Amino acid sequence: MRFTDKLLSASRKNKSWLCIGLDPDPELMPVIDVLEFNKAIIESTSDLVCAYKPNLAFYEAMGTDGLAILEKTLKQVPTHIPVIGDAKRGDIGNTAKAYARALFSVLGFDAATVSPYLGFDSVQPFISYEDKAVFILCRTSNKGAMDFQGLLTDGSPLYEIVAQKAKQWNIHGNIGLVVGATYPGELQRVRSICPDMPLLIPGIGAQGGDLASAVAGGADARGEKAIINVSRQILYASKGRDFAEAAKKMAEKIRDQINGYLGR
Amino acid sequence: MRFTDKLLSASRKNKSWLCIGLDPDPELMPVIDVLEFNKAIIESTSDLVCAYKPNLAFYEAMGTDGLAILEKTLKQVPTHIPVIGDAKRGDIGNTAKAYARALFSVLGFDAATVSPYLGFDSVQPFISYEDKAVFILCRTSNKGAMDFQGLLTDGSPLYEIVAQKAKQWNIHGNIGLVVGATYPGELQRVRSICPDMPLLIPGIGAQGGDLASAVAGGADARGEKAIINVSRQILYASKGRDFAEAAKKMAEKIRDQINGYLGR
Repeated sequence: MRFTDKLLSASRKNKSWLCIGLDPDPELMPVIDVLEFNKAIIESTSDLVCAYKPNLAFYEAMGTDGLAILEKTLKQVPTHIPVIGDAKRGDIGNTAKAYARALFSVLGFDAATVSPYLGFDSVQPFISYEDKAVFILCRTSNKGAMDFQGLLTDGSPLYEIVAQKAKQWNIHGNIGLVVGATYPGELQRVRSICPDMPLLIPGIGAQGGDLASAVAGGADARGEKAIINVSRQILYASKGRDFAEAAKKMAEKIRDQINGYLGR
Repeated sequence: MRFTDKLLSASRKNKSWLCIGLDPDPELMPVIDVLEFNKAIIESTSDLVCAYKPNLAFYEAMGTDGLAILEKTLKQVPTHIPVIGDAKRGDIGNTAKAYARALFSVLGFDAATVSPYLGFDSVQPFISYEDKAVFILCRTSNKGAMDFQGLLTDGSPLYEIVAQKAKQWNIHGNIGLVVGATYPGELQRVRSICPDMPLLIPGIGAQGGDLASAVAGGADARGEKAIINVSRQILYASKGRDFAEAAKKMAEKIRDQINGYLGR
């Protein structure tokens, strides 16, 4: 099944555009066992999300065990829920091919995030997996984003040019964009450049993005394809033994807020 | 010891500005055992290089074993030779911190490559390891590089602005730049913007860059700090059982050519 079909199907089944970032941080987790933590989070939220998104950094920081924990985590996700590997990879052709193999064939992610800096041949090996999706970093949610993403070429900021190029490169129909919720006007602008692409929208919660404007600016004309990612606000909703229950309540609350803003 | 001191010391000891990219590709390797392959390459070339540079993609593509093989490979490198983790990571602050921990504390690399697209706060967690070095992607060697790196802002291409920013960000004196050998004029331009920074220069050999102009354009005023990376041309110099010996001969030849161009 193609990624967009899987995404829409999970989203419609769970009436949700919420994606949970599975980013286990040893400094914040209420339990020591990462797999136990992830398993509990997934079990308590899998009927409330359209996708999960583990960020590979947190697993790599655990050493050689990390990747095994990630693999076991992926097995805990119900097969009808797509999983996005947040890896932000970007390298020259033959190396990008190895990264795509690692993320799609070895780890089995349904989608991955990639950086645009190296241009088309760094993205091409990823999009050639036609059933998988590739989310290209466009306008990120962090403070330093505009150091380069805001630079103007012929009056257009770099992130808009990335959106335009992504549209041209979308020959297999499996490209999406990462656009932070922290700048709603820019999110809206990217949505107008790419009216049909799935947008992965981080930056809600801990990073300070406003949910209402993220939903309004990110959704397509049908009120779909805006994947709203929340990580810390859900994972660490409680620092006690009731963390999974607290995560469930927070996920439910955010999902319902999103649906409210979508008029559902 | 700080990275630049370790680099200069290894380079002077081995009279070499050659860096070998340890990129084991199952389709090209003459033996099946990756660790055996890397070990043989390192043993036969460690008196001919200033650094080694494993690209993480090739290890990640091997699955969960890959990272263990990478760790064991790093143990084979004599401690006086610096090792650059070619990872091209780039993420928001708290995630970049996890990547920096993975590369510097867990894997123990002396340096890492990072992507500039997310701006200063994505680079900051890396440079805060003051003994380590951070090579920021500037002008890459691949075909699609100019899709974005060549875009003009106030007459300057993006890669030059990256070089200028890197110079401003270099508060701990541990930033370097990645500049491909495939466009010697641009390499020369980056060297003039950052006269003192170490430059990591891929693109020789399989990618078609010219060695003479890479050395001339990349070296600093003392004829140093141009780390010329070669991977495939050395690793796969022979596809037979004599691969390590062939690698040694090729490494020696390229090292001597570099020294010739430096007038040594």
